[in-house]
Amino acid sequence: MIPPRAADEAAATEAGGRRRLGRLLTAVENDPAAAAEIVRSMWARAGGARRIGVTGPSGVGKSTLVDHLIAMARADGSTVAVVAVDPSSPYSGGAILGDRVRMLRHSGDPGVYIRSMAARDHLGGLAAATRDAAHVLDAFGFGVLILETVGVGQSELDVMRAADTIVVVMAPGLGDSIQTLKAGILEIADLLVVNKADRQGAKETALQLREMRHLAPKPSGWDVPILQTVASEGTGIAELWQAIRQHWDYLRASGEYEVRRGRGTVREVMDLVERALAARLRATLGAPGQVGEILERARNGALDPHSAAQAILDRLLTQSR
Amino acid sequence: MIPPRAADEAAATEAGGRRRLGRLLTAVENDPAAAAEIVRSMWARAGGARRIGVTGPSGVGKSTLVDHLIAMARADGSTVAVVAVDPSSPYSGGAILGDRVRMLRHSGDPGVYIRSMAARDHLGGLAAATRDAAHVLDAFGFGVLILETVGVGQSELDVMRAADTIVVVMAPGLGDSIQTLKAGILEIADLLVVNKADRQGAKETALQLREMRHLAPKPSGWDVPILQTVASEGTGIAELWQAIRQHWDYLRASGEYEVRRGRGTVREVMDLVERALAARLRATLGAPGQVGEILERARNGALDPHSAAQAILDRLLTQSR
Repeated sequence: MIPPRAADEAAATEAGGRRRLGRLLTAVENDPAAAAEIVRSMWARAGGARRIGVTGPSGVGKSTLVDHLIAMARADGSTVAVVAVDPSSPYSGGAILGDRVRMLRHSGDPGVYIRSMAARDHLGGLAAATRDAAHVLDAFGFGVLILETVGVGQSELDVMRAADTIVVVMAPGLGDSIQTLKAGILEIADLLVVNKADRQGAKETALQLREMRHLAPKPSGWDVPILQTVASEGTGIAELWQAIRQHWDYLRASGEYEVRRGRGTVREVMDLVERALAARLRATLGAPGQVGEILERARNGALDPHSAAQAILDRLLTQSR
Repeated sequence: MIPPRAADEAAATEAGGRRRLGRLLTAVENDPAAAAEIVRSMWARAGGARRIGVTGPSGVGKSTLVDHLIAMARADGSTVAVVAVDPSSPYSGGAILGDRVRMLRHSGDPGVYIRSMAARDHLGGLAAATRDAAHVLDAFGFGVLILETVGVGQSELDVMRAADTIVVVMAPGLGDSIQTLKAGILEIADLLVVNKADRQGAKETALQLREMRHLAPKPSGWDVPILQTVASEGTGIAELWQAIRQHWDYLRASGEYEVRRGRGTVREVMDLVERALAARLRATLGAPGQVGEILERARNGALDPHSAAQAILDRLLTQSR
């Protein structure tokens, strides 16, 4: 796998660069070993993109909101790449459908690149594949990187952790779904948005978020704002973009930027180590006449659990050479 | 660490055997390496005890219920060992307090042995330490082994998985706590008990459990009974003991006993392997100038995450020799 030579914005905006980018992202998505090699070879050029995460339950209008954010970033003179992640979809059907609509809209703009990722059978994990895709897009020179997820499960949380600024989107009338936000996602929100704010119950949703915000531990120096938008009409978008820029300024001025990126990197490294160990264990389990035999002897009581574990561990570490 | 020679009930019931047992359990609790050696040396004699798990939220009267179960098992002519587990307590204070009361009550009976385990700093994990303690008590020849937990968290679930028959205890008027049962514990219940059944709301609690039971996947051939007891007055205890015996008969007759024990053993072995790998990883992290240095280079961007992960993995596997 040969990495692209040019790492400037030209590489991302010219047609040849985009085709190369597409091939690299496909490799990153489908082959963890290739992903490691690609990221390694491009690493020196990555790290300059501002990473915005956008998450929230489905049906709150995230795609429309992201479309506006693309436009705001473009108006600021920045190139934009979007990674749309759908962990709930075994195929990339839904995400790709939305993508195509958006791709059509932005097809005339060489400064915008949109890529969807679905659960499929990511050996390295969807969050890991998304992080690698982000590194590649970053190295290609995109100024703003938007990580967008569908739903609010654990995978989405893991994806969001790769972002510098995390925007959690809600909408009125989702009832119980605001409760599900409690399970971790609220704690990592830097900005809270009530979209479809012209609908009934918007004020109540904002109040609920305000209450829940008080339950979450507050980051020092940053008061998580609650913004109201009507993305379908473009209302409140300029204020949202302004708040995102203020969060960037806060991250930089407070030194929180380096702390976060560092923490994220350590988490990413340890996650890769754990995945590699788990993959090694699975591979050993599948080998005939190997670990399966040890487990069988444990199962029928011939071998005690500790001796069986030690035998598997020995095999695991021996085979690694 | 020299294991006891005699593995019959005499070993458990004579004073010298009890002192030896106490020393072995202390070693098992505090030293994972010693635990492995002890279980290994005693394994051939383990496996004969019937293991009953008793769990449920705190305040439902589990201890009183367990006291009755001890008496029922003794009346059946069996010796009984109890492992009382409190994962929520950093010290074994609470558990030991209850234990002392119970120990006083059973102090005249050499056929009963009670041991408490608290969270403390179990390097090998509380559930693992409990499993090992159960193996030791089993090898000592106790006929019935009761694993009792306080609370219904993940640790308690892991502890319960070592039991053949799992009794989940509730009480009326616990409000939301019945909801928390949904998170996994109901799925593994073989018997459901509403204790304090003379209190208001007992019927409602039983109805709620009945509904929730229908949500859980049913094991073939065993209809999870819902029993009502008033442990403080001894009401319903004979029926509960009868249901536990029926579950034993079901396990044996259906072949489910072998399936469960086999599944439990495989889970135990894989858990030990994962713990050993994690411990190895932690040890490597702590070593100065080793993994910490690699992580630091990743943190400041000098090293990409994949190269850092590979370097840590290499170090991990090299040091294992």
